[in-house]
Amino acid sequence: MEKLDCPGFKAGGIAAGIKKTGARDLGILYSELPASAAAVFTRNAVQAACVTLNKEKIRSGKARAIVVNSGNANCCTGERGMNDARATAAFAATALDLPKDEVLVASTGVIGQYLPMEKIESAVPALVECLAEDGFSDFAESILTTDKISKMVACSGKIDGRRFQIMGVAKGSGMIRPDMATMLCFVVTDAAVSPDLLTEMLRKAVARSFNRITVDGDTSTNDMVVLLANGRSGVDIESPDTVELFQKKLDLVLHQLAVMIVKDGEGATKLVEIVVQGARSENDARAVADTVANSNLVKTAFFGEDANWGRIIAAVGRAGIPLQEERIDIRFDDVLMVANGLWCGMEAEKAATAVLKKPEFCITIDLKQGNGASSVLTCDFSTEYVAINADYRS
Amino acid sequence: MEKLDCPGFKAGGIAAGIKKTGARDLGILYSELPASAAAVFTRNAVQAACVTLNKEKIRSGKARAIVVNSGNANCCTGERGMNDARATAAFAATALDLPKDEVLVASTGVIGQYLPMEKIESAVPALVECLAEDGFSDFAESILTTDKISKMVACSGKIDGRRFQIMGVAKGSGMIRPDMATMLCFVVTDAAVSPDLLTEMLRKAVARSFNRITVDGDTSTNDMVVLLANGRSGVDIESPDTVELFQKKLDLVLHQLAVMIVKDGEGATKLVEIVVQGARSENDARAVADTVANSNLVKTAFFGEDANWGRIIAAVGRAGIPLQEERIDIRFDDVLMVANGLWCGMEAEKAATAVLKKPEFCITIDLKQGNGASSVLTCDFSTEYVAINADYRS
Repeated sequence: MEKLDCPGFKAGGIAAGIKKTGARDLGILYSELPASAAAVFTRNAVQAACVTLNKEKIRSGKARAIVVNSGNANCCTGERGMNDARATAAFAATALDLPKDEVLVASTGVIGQYLPMEKIESAVPALVECLAEDGFSDFAESILTTDKISKMVACSGKIDGRRFQIMGVAKGSGMIRPDMATMLCFVVTDAAVSPDLLTEMLRKAVARSFNRITVDGDTSTNDMVVLLANGRSGVDIESPDTVELFQKKLDLVLHQLAVMIVKDGEGATKLVEIVVQGARSENDARAVADTVANSNLVKTAFFGEDANWGRIIAAVGRAGIPLQEERIDIRFDDVLMVANGLWCGMEAEKAATAVLKKPEFCITIDLKQGNGASSVLTCDFSTEYVAINADYRS
Repeated sequence: MEKLDCPGFKAGGIAAGIKKTGARDLGILYSELPASAAAVFTRNAVQAACVTLNKEKIRSGKARAIVVNSGNANCCTGERGMNDARATAAFAATALDLPKDEVLVASTGVIGQYLPMEKIESAVPALVECLAEDGFSDFAESILTTDKISKMVACSGKIDGRRFQIMGVAKGSGMIRPDMATMLCFVVTDAAVSPDLLTEMLRKAVARSFNRITVDGDTSTNDMVVLLANGRSGVDIESPDTVELFQKKLDLVLHQLAVMIVKDGEGATKLVEIVVQGARSENDARAVADTVANSNLVKTAFFGEDANWGRIIAAVGRAGIPLQEERIDIRFDDVLMVANGLWCGMEAEKAATAVLKKPEFCITIDLKQGNGASSVLTCDFSTEYVAINADYRS
């Protein structure tokens, strides 16, 4: 197992009293060296103060620290919320002796409440004090909301005999809780990468990971993925070969974190990959995969372990793309359940039902119209999801 | 209360053995006179045989009878399914002594199984035999699947001293069951209307009713609304005044049936109208209303009676339209909960929570960007929905 740290970076997390439970709720990431920075933000038109602020800061292409609070999204908090986000960055910048432009902020929690700035101000010195090379697990814990588990992945690579490390931390119990500010991910690496290249690689990795998972299709006001590269390893990511290798490792880290998020989805009992192939384009394939992966009827059938292919084909039909129903094949893992739009009979149904009893399986939909393919990871939809979300705030 | 019939029309419904329960599962509507016909069909690209067949038949602008079976959608059944649909129409045409082109068919139930044609063939004579002017309640019962209640609405109007009647029957337990072939509606009137005008008015009425309700956003393979006008009353719908009056009455019938469907939604405990105003266009307003009305997080919060406006504003934000968050107002009935994007405080929250305890309420979202407005009817999302849908086929 990879060591869960990254040379030249320190992390930490403490309880600042933002959460009522007394759990860790304030975390920090810090680079000992100047670092390139890249970020991807939510596309929700309603954006938390931290998203607005970081979008400005990230333009410089560099950052040294990130302060994250959980328990409060600082979203829909107007000018006061923006001032609070700026002040949080400023407190940390002072304590770390950094320009405040190099400190990013992130928040996750309930929407519409002001941050308890006195608590944050008085906690920042202790937060900076606790920074340690092995502080990533405290950091990972401090950014959680309703997640059941901490999410950390590390991965290393070697270029010209030199080793580089990529270390990622995420939170999110599925993309299912806009009021919990859902999905945050922070990745650090000791490779040296220019800000532009870092941004390009991060966008690709996010498209292949976090943008291909769904729990219920809701997108948060606070989602962000931030990547810092401080070059401590002496490994330069520049030539096509090195870019390819780094991208592969970065993809791996983000993919594993994305899988952890879906598995930790509210009330989820199954991890399901929806694969669509034979579409006229990748976009068409993605539209079908998204519609199936987000269908409540399909997801409740997964929960009920019911091989209800009628719900799948009906969801395919409403994806908004032209179809030839009489060509569609549907497989449950390797079991051909629907061939050319028709049911394959009771034997196939029995075999497909057995597949559904597994904790992880794959549904493959072949449209037989072309070469476009895509896939989405989803989970089932249980009574527990509703129970949890019906009284989340109370 | 209006009498639930329509002069010049007969209806009936019997048990043909399609449903395992022995409940009524074969229904018929019949016009004693030649009638204009109009229809609106599902936009799902996967379409049941009855949808494909009726689309051909309706081109003539006339029809005299409709045969409907429940318990089996006759969808994803290929050429054999098409032949079965044609044969069903032919059996009824023979028994009624009508050209088979004037008999429409509709099916609702499980996807992917062949119709039991022997049962249908042997039941058709008894079905035609039971046709009666007061047979609409038997017909309404025969087209149900998981609906808890029959859905019938009648409405009359007067033009130049002559009375006309509009009588509508629907089935659908929310738009939530593609494998149950979800939503069917049959409307008859004794007014005289040309097929083209009838089609135009039906489309308008559907846009204002069935296309503005949602339970979970799933659209069926079998949805259809059919309207027959036989002119028996001697009332001609032609001049602008008569068209306006007829449209108003037709809108009323379809709206009431639509409300019945949402109220009968799977596991629904609350009827909620999402009103969006102040948008730059009606389309923008509709996009926001749809996103909020279909958000699982919003709907579970309704179920939990939690005035969780953060979930509402986050759903508004992901509707895909440009927004100015700092202008958004949100009302729970008359209670202003969010003003200019900010929470109105604990008093407002208490009052909003009281609104949520009602069985019916309205959420109004004012974007303050223009004059575009729209609204959607939805329901809450309960643990019962998941429980029912997890093991529907078993």
